[in-house]
Amino acid sequence: MSKKLPKRNENYSEWYQELVIQADLAEHSAVSGCMVIKPYGYGIWERMQQILDQKFKETGHQNAYFPLFIPKSFLSKEAQHVDGFAKECAVVTHHRLKNDPNGKGVIVDPDAKLEEELIVRPTSETIIWHTYKKWIQSYRDLPLLINQWANVVRWEMRTRLFLRTTEFLWQEGHTAHATQEEAIAEAKQMLEVYADFVENTLSIPVIKGVKTENERFAGALETYCIEAMMQDGKALQAGTSHFLGQNFAKAFDVQYLNKNNQLEYVWATSWGVSTRLMGALIMSHSDDDGLILPPNLAPIQIVFIPIYKTNEEYAEVMDKLESIADLLKSEGFRVKIDNDDSKRPGWKFAEWELKGVPLRFSLGPKDLKNHQIEVFRRDTKEKSFIPIENIVSNYISMLLNDIQKNLFNIAQNRLKERTIYVDSYQEFKNSLDNDCFVMAHWDGTTETELLIKEETKATIRCIPLDSPFEEGKCVKTGKPSQRRVLFARAY
Amino acid sequence: MSKKLPKRNENYSEWYQELVIQADLAEHSAVSGCMVIKPYGYGIWERMQQILDQKFKETGHQNAYFPLFIPKSFLSKEAQHVDGFAKECAVVTHHRLKNDPNGKGVIVDPDAKLEEELIVRPTSETIIWHTYKKWIQSYRDLPLLINQWANVVRWEMRTRLFLRTTEFLWQEGHTAHATQEEAIAEAKQMLEVYADFVENTLSIPVIKGVKTENERFAGALETYCIEAMMQDGKALQAGTSHFLGQNFAKAFDVQYLNKNNQLEYVWATSWGVSTRLMGALIMSHSDDDGLILPPNLAPIQIVFIPIYKTNEEYAEVMDKLESIADLLKSEGFRVKIDNDDSKRPGWKFAEWELKGVPLRFSLGPKDLKNHQIEVFRRDTKEKSFIPIENIVSNYISMLLNDIQKNLFNIAQNRLKERTIYVDSYQEFKNSLDNDCFVMAHWDGTTETELLIKEETKATIRCIPLDSPFEEGKCVKTGKPSQRRVLFARAY
Repeated sequence: MSKKLPKRNENYSEWYQELVIQADLAEHSAVSGCMVIKPYGYGIWERMQQILDQKFKETGHQNAYFPLFIPKSFLSKEAQHVDGFAKECAVVTHHRLKNDPNGKGVIVDPDAKLEEELIVRPTSETIIWHTYKKWIQSYRDLPLLINQWANVVRWEMRTRLFLRTTEFLWQEGHTAHATQEEAIAEAKQMLEVYADFVENTLSIPVIKGVKTENERFAGALETYCIEAMMQDGKALQAGTSHFLGQNFAKAFDVQYLNKNNQLEYVWATSWGVSTRLMGALIMSHSDDDGLILPPNLAPIQIVFIPIYKTNEEYAEVMDKLESIADLLKSEGFRVKIDNDDSKRPGWKFAEWELKGVPLRFSLGPKDLKNHQIEVFRRDTKEKSFIPIENIVSNYISMLLNDIQKNLFNIAQNRLKERTIYVDSYQEFKNSLDNDCFVMAHWDGTTETELLIKEETKATIRCIPLDSPFEEGKCVKTGKPSQRRVLFARAY
Repeated sequence: MSKKLPKRNENYSEWYQELVIQADLAEHSAVSGCMVIKPYGYGIWERMQQILDQKFKETGHQNAYFPLFIPKSFLSKEAQHVDGFAKECAVVTHHRLKNDPNGKGVIVDPDAKLEEELIVRPTSETIIWHTYKKWIQSYRDLPLLINQWANVVRWEMRTRLFLRTTEFLWQEGHTAHATQEEAIAEAKQMLEVYADFVENTLSIPVIKGVKTENERFAGALETYCIEAMMQDGKALQAGTSHFLGQNFAKAFDVQYLNKNNQLEYVWATSWGVSTRLMGALIMSHSDDDGLILPPNLAPIQIVFIPIYKTNEEYAEVMDKLESIADLLKSEGFRVKIDNDDSKRPGWKFAEWELKGVPLRFSLGPKDLKNHQIEVFRRDTKEKSFIPIENIVSNYISMLLNDIQKNLFNIAQNRLKERTIYVDSYQEFKNSLDNDCFVMAHWDGTTETELLIKEETKATIRCIPLDSPFEEGKCVKTGKPSQRRVLFARAY
């Protein structure tokens, strides 16, 4: 831990950037727009992967791996898709370097130009549907339920660690179905899987909805999404699940023989979450002292810190801490003893607060004598002394669950308090400026949506699934509307 | 399962290729040289990842993630490294496509040329050591023990699924140490981790050794390796661990303050295994009926197949199979019931033999009456009937362990029988032509090594770590030699 973080209310963006770097989550690399995910940050991402992967497998999906490269011509096959994705991407044009004849170093070998350029995948629908054509002949081959964990590249000029990087890590599910109903059910199911994960593992409440036509994924008929509110009142899209209709099946000619021996085009979905979730996590819960991790996610749930002066005291204190830590470890808790002798306890306290570990237990010779241990909760910053014999599985579970819930409740209250129902454009703008989400009527046209975006920088985050029927008038045009939609400024 | 595999002794290479495809392990993709790893194949790779990852963590390593792209200039920084790696690689030269003004499709936007080309990583030493410069200041920052699971690209003209592909998946460990001794100890430790994994999980015996200067990794001072014998007598390098000395530390100026407050260059290792291990696995154990998986690795250890004619029989048989499968699952075995009604039992038998599942249990109404179940071992092809009540954890464990050991023993015997100690060049060539490994004296020069390679296509696979001191004469030149080295033709 090198220095104090900037304060959120003074410079939120600086605070975020510094927190990511100081808490050892990630940093900028030598390659413009690409990040290095550091071991502590990667450990959190690995936890996300494990938990999501299990949920995917429980819902019948299998993992596979498709090529990093996509032939340029594939991108043109689905007309809307090419418009959405083919622009800012990494293009491989050559396959060889050679020694620079003028001296040192290497140059691109002009003789090794590729006949067709390859694109580093920005998403894999095209290469996957090209493959599915070989895999799908009959209704017996359906549904095909596949997921891929991969790196993808979308060239970005202005990047922010985790939130927007040229290369990022994600998972992309790609499923094929015999009927429209089944594909829609799959897209909705995966939205629920994401919502459940984000709410119960990351402790972040989300609004489930569908995107407007303008905000839809390129090539989708419907994009389901979950939207979360960050502490600065901005929205962050935490996951999307797309019903792709038969668009990719038609573009790549993927048909199957149905039970009546007739050829039909296959119905598709795709769905993904990415390392962006790391950004959502940080901006939902953290404070001016650093990260705050929900216990269900945290790679380290409890850190133990020995307090001592003499070698004898160290031995006594460590003996006790090790026996407690071993017990909790054997019961499945993720624990760490920080016995680094080169750092003082105060330094360690600050370091593990910065890194967001939910619980800190510290023990010194005096505590030992009093049969007590000091417990510090990262979320509330409460310190208390409790009898050592109370440190048992039930108590720890209760405490961790309480932290998990408390983080969710804080974020949930923020979301409720700062979601404003407005009926005039002035209120609309005021609410945005007060860092709020806005539920407002909209006339349903892309034209109005874009006009509002231009004037206020707010976009329609989604049409919430639970937004009830309600007669009203568009805040901008006064034209009739039948339900409110969610507007916000967004990451 | 579509058709019979070619026979190994008729066309080994065809047999391999067809097995990979028919057993649903992998297939060629639309992108030249890149493969699609299918769900069943990827499931095996995931098992490899899980087991290795745990071993890496147990030996103190953490995962992290570094960029996919490497600036071209980085490759030139370590002189030997650039010669070894900078040639056949994917070069990104542009970052944008645009609509073709002449009509349909997209073209590379000439205005989006990168100032410096980016190379898709063929291995990550350079980008990682560039990063380590920021992470390492003092002896307190050492050792730095990091691993990355990633995709890498080395352009290949002639590819073979899993064995040689332009893109492949791997892990690469990159560690930094204060002393030479510690770095060498790390490189050796990771060789042992690999050997243990390949021998005890994959059931493949290996020869541990060091590479000759000529066969060393570009930039390494010593390359440790494990070599395995395939059924056709060819060698396959199953893993390498490199002691890199201070080469990368010097190239990227990574120094640390030692305890005496003096600056020293850091010592390095790197080590990796890849999806090539899938090739080693297939070519060690499989037969003309398909894959044979060692039980410790197999994603499915036991497949259950119901035999029935009527719905009533189906219900009875399934009832029993489900209760057995549930029991075994709860005890940690990986099981699957194949109750696909559209396939006949004979088809399923062949299918799961092709896919290498170690044990198959089939149960019909007659068996139920006789309180027995048919057990089929994939390795020996033995069928036997055993009392249903014998299907308990201990029995299954014993059976699976026996298969695991049997596969190892078969491969071990092959390796022993077909490793020939020769003292003349004629014997040397004969033994190679008889699909054997050859232990022979060599004069220690790269010149002789290359001459032998030219004349026989055999390379020095390694200088085995356990090769004893022995006075002798080089099989090719007659010059003095002090130990035998391992020659073989190789994948």
